[in-house]
Amino acid sequence: MSRMAFFADLMGTIFARRAGKPSPFGRAPVTELCEALLSPQGEVSGMQRAREILAQYRAMSVEEKRAFFMHLAMALDIDPERVIAAASRYRETRDAADFAELSRETEPRRQELLRRLNQVPGATEELVRMRCDLLDLMEETPELKRIDPDFIHLFASWFNRGFLVLRHIEWGTPANILEKIIEYEAVHAINDWQELQRRLRPSDRRCFAFFHPAMPEEPLIFVEVALCKGIPGSIQWLLADGRTIVPDSEIDTAVFYSISNCQKGLRGISFGNSLIKQVVEDLRRDLPQVKTFVTLSPVPGLARHLKKLAAEKPEVQALLDAADAKDPSALTSHLPLLKRVTADYLLSAKRPDGLPADPVARFHLGNGAILHDVHVLGDTSVNGFRQSATAMVNYLYDLAKVEDNNENFVTSKTVAASKGVKAMIA
Amino acid sequence: MSRMAFFADLMGTIFARRAGKPSPFGRAPVTELCEALLSPQGEVSGMQRAREILAQYRAMSVEEKRAFFMHLAMALDIDPERVIAAASRYRETRDAADFAELSRETEPRRQELLRRLNQVPGATEELVRMRCDLLDLMEETPELKRIDPDFIHLFASWFNRGFLVLRHIEWGTPANILEKIIEYEAVHAINDWQELQRRLRPSDRRCFAFFHPAMPEEPLIFVEVALCKGIPGSIQWLLADGRTIVPDSEIDTAVFYSISNCQKGLRGISFGNSLIKQVVEDLRRDLPQVKTFVTLSPVPGLARHLKKLAAEKPEVQALLDAADAKDPSALTSHLPLLKRVTADYLLSAKRPDGLPADPVARFHLGNGAILHDVHVLGDTSVNGFRQSATAMVNYLYDLAKVEDNNENFVTSKTVAASKGVKAMIA
Amino acid sequence: MSRMAFFADLMGTIFARRAGKPSPFGRAPVTELCEALLSPQGEVSGMQRAREILAQYRAMSVEEKRAFFMHLAMALDIDPERVIAAASRYRETRDAADFAELSRETEPRRQELLRRLNQVPGATEELVRMRCDLLDLMEETPELKRIDPDFIHLFASWFNRGFLVLRHIEWGTPANILEKIIEYEAVHAINDWQELQRRLRPSDRRCFAFFHPAMPEEPLIFVEVALCKGIPGSIQWLLADGRTIVPDSEIDTAVFYSISNCQKGLRGISFGNSLIKQVVEDLRRDLPQVKTFVTLSPVPGLARHLKKLAAEKPEVQALLDAADAKDPSALTSHLPLLKRVTADYLLSAKRPDGLPADPVARFHLGNGAILHDVHVLGDTSVNGFRQSATAMVNYLYDLAKVEDNNENFVTSKTVAASKGVKAMIA
Amino acid sequence: MSRMAFFADLMGTIFARRAGKPSPFGRAPVTELCEALLSPQGEVSGMQRAREILAQYRAMSVEEKRAFFMHLAMALDIDPERVIAAASRYRETRDAADFAELSRETEPRRQELLRRLNQVPGATEELVRMRCDLLDLMEETPELKRIDPDFIHLFASWFNRGFLVLRHIEWGTPANILEKIIEYEAVHAINDWQELQRRLRPSDRRCFAFFHPAMPEEPLIFVEVALCKGIPGSIQWLLADGRTIVPDSEIDTAVFYSISNCQKGLRGISFGNSLIKQVVEDLRRDLPQVKTFVTLSPVPGLARHLKKLAAEKPEVQALLDAADAKDPSALTSHLPLLKRVTADYLLSAKRPDGLPADPVARFHLGNGAILHDVHVLGDTSVNGFRQSATAMVNYLYDLAKVEDNNENFVTSKTVAASKGVKAMIA
Repeated sequence: MSRMAFFADLMGTIFARRAGKPSPFGRAPVTELCEALLSPQGEVSGMQRAREILAQYRAMSVEEKRAFFMHLAMALDIDPERVIAAASRYRETRDAADFAELSRETEPRRQELLRRLNQVPGATEELVRMRCDLLDLMEETPELKRIDPDFIHLFASWFNRGFLVLRHIEWGTPANILEKIIEYEAVHAINDWQELQRRLRPSDRRCFAFFHPAMPEEPLIFVEVALCKGIPGSIQWLLADGRTIVPDSEIDTAVFYSISNCQKGLRGISFGNSLIKQVVEDLRRDLPQVKTFVTLSPVPGLARHLKKLAAEKPEVQALLDAADAKDPSALTSHLPLLKRVTADYLLSAKRPDGLPADPVARFHLGNGAILHDVHVLGDTSVNGFRQSATAMVNYLYDLAKVEDNNENFVTSKTVAASKGVKAMIA
Repeated sequence: MSRMAFFADLMGTIFARRAGKPSPFGRAPVTELCEALLSPQGEVSGMQRAREILAQYRAMSVEEKRAFFMHLAMALDIDPERVIAAASRYRETRDAADFAELSRETEPRRQELLRRLNQVPGATEELVRMRCDLLDLMEETPELKRIDPDFIHLFASWFNRGFLVLRHIEWGTPANILEKIIEYEAVHAINDWQELQRRLRPSDRRCFAFFHPAMPEEPLIFVEVALCKGIPGSIQWLLADGRTIVPDSEIDTAVFYSISNCQKGLRGISFGNSLIKQVVEDLRRDLPQVKTFVTLSPVPGLARHLKKLAAEKPEVQALLDAADAKDPSALTSHLPLLKRVTADYLLSAKRPDGLPADPVARFHLGNGAILHDVHVLGDTSVNGFRQSATAMVNYLYDLAKVEDNNENFVTSKTVAASKGVKAMIA
Repeated sequence: MSRMAFFADLMGTIFARRAGKPSPFGRAPVTELCEALLSPQGEVSGMQRAREILAQYRAMSVEEKRAFFMHLAMALDIDPERVIAAASRYRETRDAADFAELSRETEPRRQELLRRLNQVPGATEELVRMRCDLLDLMEETPELKRIDPDFIHLFASWFNRGFLVLRHIEWGTPANILEKIIEYEAVHAINDWQELQRRLRPSDRRCFAFFHPAMPEEPLIFVEVALCKGIPGSIQWLLADGRTIVPDSEIDTAVFYSISNCQKGLRGISFGNSLIKQVVEDLRRDLPQVKTFVTLSPVPGLARHLKKLAAEKPEVQALLDAADAKDPSALTSHLPLLKRVTADYLLSAKRPDGLPADPVARFHLGNGAILHDVHVLGDTSVNGFRQSATAMVNYLYDLAKVEDNNENFVTSKTVAASKGVKAMIA
Repeated sequence: MSRMAFFADLMGTIFARRAGKPSPFGRAPVTELCEALLSPQGEVSGMQRAREILAQYRAMSVEEKRAFFMHLAMALDIDPERVIAAASRYRETRDAADFAELSRETEPRRQELLRRLNQVPGATEELVRMRCDLLDLMEETPELKRIDPDFIHLFASWFNRGFLVLRHIEWGTPANILEKIIEYEAVHAINDWQELQRRLRPSDRRCFAFFHPAMPEEPLIFVEVALCKGIPGSIQWLLADGRTIVPDSEIDTAVFYSISNCQKGLRGISFGNSLIKQVVEDLRRDLPQVKTFVTLSPVPGLARHLKKLAAEKPEVQALLDAADAKDPSALTSHLPLLKRVTADYLLSAKRPDGLPADPVARFHLGNGAILHDVHVLGDTSVNGFRQSATAMVNYLYDLAKVEDNNENFVTSKTVAASKGVKAMIA
């Protein structure tokens, strides 16, 4: 216990050092500063140079940033000739020194630049934002794409699961963190602090996030959990203002009803799978009465699927027309069809690579969950009508089977589903 | 302030998760487990496989470890042919996808293995120990050397300066950390807790260490500082039991009298330069009355140098004979010679690469310090007599000049020295 | 530093123990439970009895509470005969044992009851709420008033300045604490989280609160501070949305613009004086450029004073009529009069005991501040018009003179004022 | 969880303020300073006066301290005449104001003085030390005894159970706290840090202490616990260097083998009972496999009892002679007698007030424990031979029965004992 406290203190010093110092460098060109930072002396006087580069970067216009990245892409690239030469030598010798040489030649100098920039306190966050800019600029300037593997390589090392810290998010969490939960919630929007309080404060609600020690005020990903009696099928029911709180003694199910990635700059570095499993493990330990772990998930690809179907099937067109009214009662007679079509979509619709067409399905099935149930009138918000004609889905996480499920999914690309869901299309 | 507290809490959860769980894997061969961990499914079921691999590794004999590393070196190596092919393609196209492909081909699979092992809580420490083993085994089995660049590459990313945390070490620090300070002190041994207390508790003493968030109970490097009036020349005087504590109002000098690297497994990842500079900055802020920052350093290469000289110069042989008695008074008549020879050694003795022969000199001059003073009878311990016939040295850190000094040192390999030291050899 | 961390941990255990346990006592009458708690066995089995009494108290109706207090007032009172006997004995003997006996006889048993109730984790907060109830019930049931000195006596010991902890309140403070700042702000209401953010987040704003270790989620009192260039005279200007933030380098003045007591149940236990002085000391240390410490205070007694004057002076009636329009421009021609009358009111209007009539003046002058300036159009909110026809005041805290000022104020009841204010009435 | 962290932070500020400031008061006589502190102005300028009084007190000689206390005893005493008058008035009126007046008259001014001294950060610790001095001086100067009830009254309020914090003491606890555990261990001495480590580090050992928030570096009382398989009868076996650690799965018993009060100045403020019960509750929650909670306790009154018996019974004299050799084997033939006599002593030997003669028995039986077992050769240290001819005792805490046991003990003064112990004297 007190080790933790010692450590808390340890981390605290990060902040003490945050207070920046003015730069002794004038306005040297940023490319020159990059060269200086990469020089052997860079190891010694690097801190201030790195600080200055980051400061200049912050002040750049979009076009200046494009030029900066172009410099990284071109001037700090590898030399394929030298790579080939080194690889050829290693092919012959299999010598450690030759391997080290090959390693050096195949790592672009810009990667070491990013690593040295990171020595400045707070730089990790800035580098994540830098990649955000890169992702935008890459769209129009494909030459910049070759920088991205370097970011990905570094971020995969830096944001390795072993360095992430799982945190409860609750009503007693610092407001500057909570404000970001409001901002980053991507599935079911949180409109104000009262709504946030309803998601965090009741004894039957939980929220967990991953953080990185070098970005302690920035959640990386978070998941919201409702503790329920039984498996719910409606998000409006789950989030209703004035709902009855489930007493501890009646809770038997944990529902993951919202998972949001927070950092666009970390795209491609996947946290969701680890987060869900860690949270399942923690909840099992803290709430042994919880036996069932499910999601209540949207079906974001359904609308498009329905539109395609409608071209051939007039009853689907009728369903779409009814959904267009955003009125639950108008849907009544179409619900059996909606259920069947949704189940069929999730079980059978595939991408060219054979994986499920629905991205949320891909994510949870890829994590080893199974398709457990399909609900109509599950999301009656405007967005719910638009996205899936109100359909929602439960994916079930059974830790004992997650691995086999995943193995099967990777090997055979089959969608594991409950008997109930299979029966829907029978 | 409360952000820090939030964060303290954040880090605390690391420990909560420390409690290991028994493995569901039987005793699958470790190589098979490695393949499984590297498979696409490894991302999902990786945690338990990684745990099992680490558990098996811990239980291995030296020979089993050698075999394990041999597997990493051979089976998980790159294929130079594929590297050459990918580099050739990239040479033509300069296409981002081809660059990404080349990046993949040039990274041995063992590197990703180490990265995936690291997802287990506590694994970072185990991987540092694993490299310790490797460093030993490499001596006899040179084929293993090619694994080391992968460790270095990962550790350089993971232990990036931006992720390290500077901590005061004081008498109120948890005992399990203090115990390691006793264990790791490499320059002037700490024999028991009373001696430790004398180094930490007085108001004119400080100690600082770098930690990594994933190894919160393991210091990486630490430095001991004495706050003095004037620049001292004797380590025995500095550490004397019963000495008078310097009142705050008289302090004008900070003396770095001991710097110890703690983790053999992090060899080649350099922290000393950053640590000294950070500590100088922090002390300048907290104790504005301190104007001078110096070391009191040993001259570990001197004994060998003296022995070489003695072959030609009988007076040096006489000096060595006197030093052999380990009796300060016996040295009296030899002191002027000792001072001159020491200054000369530090100013002029070089390695083949032109850098100073003395390793401590290389370190501090490379950090941008200058050679400020030479003392005889500076270390009258048995070790002091043996290592340098009692000579000690002050290196001076003047932050305003550190960068230019370093620049000069890197460029011209000249030893920057005070007039006083230069005069010693005049 | 790490002592603090140790301690943080220490305090954390409070919460771990918060989770209540069900009571083994049935529904014994609360009076019986009180007797049991006061018995010699009460020391041993007290925890559960105390818990049960508090649980029963929480569930009581107002009339049941009145009965409970009546029991405390009557059945657990002192016996004056025994006090007289013990005092007579002590008068003769001056013996320690007789003094101890007298002490016992003069302390009502209800005081020990409250002390034993406090052993339950979280009880301190409940006892503070219990006194809230008492303060209400005392109004109608004067017999209960004799209980209050026991609460005051205990609270004065428990909430002794030495046990209070000063805390920064900032945007990174836990939301459950911030929510209470919104709730308790008594001077210039905070309407929502955005407004709260404007008071806490800018670099030129501060907020400090006193807490008690046994009530870590309940601020006792807090003060809001604006860091300014020069002394401001308008609260609307100070709190304007979109105002320019004062750069650190231009700050020279700290303005205490709002002080709010949070706990009605602690009425009569005074924290404001200590809080202001502690904050002045802390700001002087952290922001040495701040030379001036003033308040921007309301004049709550002014409206009543004006009304009295208006009976005799038609120009004051005209001023009041103009103020009634709640329109700053309507006041224009009355401002010189308002300024003069306000200054005169503060300098000369007295209570029967000779102290200033205005309660805010009494508070700050009693703390050793002086009346520094008077502003018209200082508070143009509806409340400002109503309370003081827009007048506001600066009280100046000069720590070097605070003591002499206080001494003079206590002795001579003179209002210390700046030349400027004195000139207003000349 | 994060509330805890917030709070940790909250407490941290205590230390920030520790750094004392020089006093503005010259060397005013301490009695004058006391008057000033007690004056109405004392509320405002009290902090510095209080600081100066404490500083002067620290510098006093024993005789000066005696004079200081004499001043408290005489000049700051109550006036019995005024108490009698006030009590008489209250007897007539039963009026709240008269009760308040009586309360004021019966509280010596020295009590308010102590309360005002306590506002200085760190003063609580100094006042506890002040009472240490008083306890010593009272021996020779009985007039001072009348001050003690004021200290007791304040300390009973300040150190109320509700304000104490239970802490794990472990090998990761700050060294400055651990050093005090070594110092204060009063039952089985801890000779050095290695021995301390043996008591704290093994997984089958625990240590808990109570702290007060205002004295975070000073434990008030601590208990050492061994987790065992079965109930042990020998302290040497329990503390043996090199003993086998009991695996978690085999633990069924928690043994309280050492309880030490740390603060002489808090004599008469009892913490032991609360501590044991809190620890039993915490261990039951954290280690549900532990079913039995016992002590392994000394019998400090046995030696005296044996000596008395020996006068009449030659076999007891023989036993004493054998014990005098401090040699276990010499005791062999006397062990049955020793066991019987010890059991008899604990069951039957009484003080004049009817309570057990043995102080440790009084403590545990008074807490509601029962006498569970008697062991010979339980403590074969020199002290064990001297104190109890090696006998030791287990007292059993059964939380379900603790209350009834205590009730019986208070009412009937009967020693509750197991059948086994009763059979020993049959």
